[in-house]
Amino acid sequence: MTARDDLEGRFDSLKGANLNLDLTRGKPAAEQLDLADELDGYLGGNYVGEDGTDVRNYGMLRGLPEARALGARLLDVAPDEVIAGGNASLTLMFFVLDAAMNTGLTGAPWRTAGRVKCLCPVPGYDRHFALADALGMELVPAPMTDGGPDMDAVEDLLENDPDVRCIWCVPKYSNPTGCIYSEETVRRLAELPRRPAANDRQPFLVLWDNAYTVHDLAFPPPRLTPILPLAKAAGTEDSIAMFASTSKITFAGGGISFVGGSANFLDAVDKRLSILMVGPDKVNQLRHVRFLAGDRLEAHMRAHAEIVRPKFEAVQRGLERGLGGTGLATWTDPKGGYFVSLDTRPGLAKAVVALAGELGVALTPAGATFPHGHDPEDRNIRIAPTLATLEEVESGIDVLALCVKVAAARQSNPA
Amino acid sequence: MTARDDLEGRFDSLKGANLNLDLTRGKPAAEQLDLADELDGYLGGNYVGEDGTDVRNYGMLRGLPEARALGARLLDVAPDEVIAGGNASLTLMFFVLDAAMNTGLTGAPWRTAGRVKCLCPVPGYDRHFALADALGMELVPAPMTDGGPDMDAVEDLLENDPDVRCIWCVPKYSNPTGCIYSEETVRRLAELPRRPAANDRQPFLVLWDNAYTVHDLAFPPPRLTPILPLAKAAGTEDSIAMFASTSKITFAGGGISFVGGSANFLDAVDKRLSILMVGPDKVNQLRHVRFLAGDRLEAHMRAHAEIVRPKFEAVQRGLERGLGGTGLATWTDPKGGYFVSLDTRPGLAKAVVALAGELGVALTPAGATFPHGHDPEDRNIRIAPTLATLEEVESGIDVLALCVKVAAARQSNPA
Repeated sequence: MTARDDLEGRFDSLKGANLNLDLTRGKPAAEQLDLADELDGYLGGNYVGEDGTDVRNYGMLRGLPEARALGARLLDVAPDEVIAGGNASLTLMFFVLDAAMNTGLTGAPWRTAGRVKCLCPVPGYDRHFALADALGMELVPAPMTDGGPDMDAVEDLLENDPDVRCIWCVPKYSNPTGCIYSEETVRRLAELPRRPAANDRQPFLVLWDNAYTVHDLAFPPPRLTPILPLAKAAGTEDSIAMFASTSKITFAGGGISFVGGSANFLDAVDKRLSILMVGPDKVNQLRHVRFLAGDRLEAHMRAHAEIVRPKFEAVQRGLERGLGGTGLATWTDPKGGYFVSLDTRPGLAKAVVALAGELGVALTPAGATFPHGHDPEDRNIRIAPTLATLEEVESGIDVLALCVKVAAARQSNPA
Repeated sequence: MTARDDLEGRFDSLKGANLNLDLTRGKPAAEQLDLADELDGYLGGNYVGEDGTDVRNYGMLRGLPEARALGARLLDVAPDEVIAGGNASLTLMFFVLDAAMNTGLTGAPWRTAGRVKCLCPVPGYDRHFALADALGMELVPAPMTDGGPDMDAVEDLLENDPDVRCIWCVPKYSNPTGCIYSEETVRRLAELPRRPAANDRQPFLVLWDNAYTVHDLAFPPPRLTPILPLAKAAGTEDSIAMFASTSKITFAGGGISFVGGSANFLDAVDKRLSILMVGPDKVNQLRHVRFLAGDRLEAHMRAHAEIVRPKFEAVQRGLERGLGGTGLATWTDPKGGYFVSLDTRPGLAKAVVALAGELGVALTPAGATFPHGHDPEDRNIRIAPTLATLEEVESGIDVLALCVKVAAARQSNPA
């Protein structure tokens, strides 16, 4: 029996196992959500904010002051550099990008200049890419490194393409590689909007989605280099659009979101918000602020880590056990966030995801981490271990590793 | 002493009264908000929707099924004709109009056709007009009647201006006149998008903001003629964009919102939403659904009416006492909603609002109910009696009536 026969035999035998595992999306597990169950009712009938605001009534477009202060903790900026919003930071990103494209944010609408392109470090977050695409931007992939986007490549793309207007960034525990942007990367990103090529296409926006800012698995946690001070030093602070939310802190899609940046930037966001809402849901903002007050936030995130860390460790153990030393794949080992990124040998990712599907293990579609779902080398697979149980993660990763080997064997020795 | 001297004397004597009254915006009073204080904590730790959905996690772009059913009650449509959203129906209106303008809703983007105009029945809601304006539309005023927009005028405007693409409507207790659109008006609005002039500019949108659908002051309440069945009969159902929210049912800006319409229309809205959120805040949706379940909704609105009705009655009493028989003003007598509309003799409204301000009574700026804040006859004043106490409403209306008389006297006999 050949090695390939052995793999195919193990693959076939698993077909009958009726697995039904989902490692597709970055959703918290029910056990994590339980940690915030006190939220409903946490106000105890006290709907009055610190400054006497009745949060049950209209108003306060920038959000409750104490909610802005919470956002400031997440974004590592000052409270007046934050607007606290509704349940989805993705919606805030839409407000910002849609205004920049269509009616103008801090300058003329981008679309009046003709083509508009958005730099997309890859692998990256599919919803970021889809948002820019839906607004009519062209998506330009840029390579990632372990320290964030490859800044030599990013700067070259900017210099050589006059239509580039923005770049997506997930600076801490990047989706999906889990890397943390290095100090040099942050500095060069802060300086990007003042490069001569960008000067005549203001506002150039650095879209800074700090989605996993406190989603650490190891303590004390690493601190991301703050970008806003570097941008102020470079005179580019109006080009930094920062985002965060509590979605993976409390309830996913039931929390509050934040947009941060300079006074000019926030004035432009405020102007946009003023036409589309009277104010955010301050009741939920107050609930969150009280629930996460003081050192509760860190304690809460440590409790998350206790649930999430074993799953991330299981991913590493399983991949090492199944694929270590084979040369068939490499993978990241993040210390936080929601994902692990696996790169197979070129040309295997789609086959691997399809094979895993045959065995009942749902993986994020191959290519999803690239613009338009197209991974030119067909090698990246995003692993999302949080929603499944520890046992399911262990089984799922074993299946994934087996499928990588089966796909590689079939590629090397086509039937 | 002349009549004018007497008025001026009364005006001067009130200057020392140090009034500080606010009749400007349609905000509920704290006493009304108290009615919903049970909301926080109402879930009692049960975060599971009727179909087993864990509302604490991501997903369900169209909202929780039972929340859609609540929206269906408000909009008088079927649950699958509703998407349940976040805290602000104005934001849903933005999503719809922004998509229609810039990327296309159910047809090509309006802006690609050049100029885009929006019909604005006047007096109307300033935020409606500001939203259309901010998106680059031109605002075309159309006259109102006691039964809704003057449909002869609306149809003429549509026929004679190829750039008209939409019309704002507040069909029940219209802001600010408080009128209810007549059956004939609703029918003609439903048929508007199929008029030959509109055929080549699809989608023509009837923006149906049913903000005050259950905000009745008299019971049993009147039923607004449902527009969607008439639109289906006319083949225009994809052109009806319906909106509602719980903002003046529970907490203002802390509730849930709804967009309703045909399957095609909702598919287009869904497509837009899918790029800018993973889903709405289903926790708050479930909280609201349980709180307003069954006959609680009507009981809750009756409790509101007990608080609001006396203030509306005080407005009528005060205006009749101060201005009845003078020929200086006419005013509406709504049986629900949040506003009373007062029309002075032409050329007086700005002066009246300024005079009232001198006496410490804040009124909505004159002209606010017209596009760009310009009331060509300078006569409309919007009265918002809900936020103030009953005593404040009584004092405020007395001041308003006096100021109308002072302004009229000064106009007739300039100093």
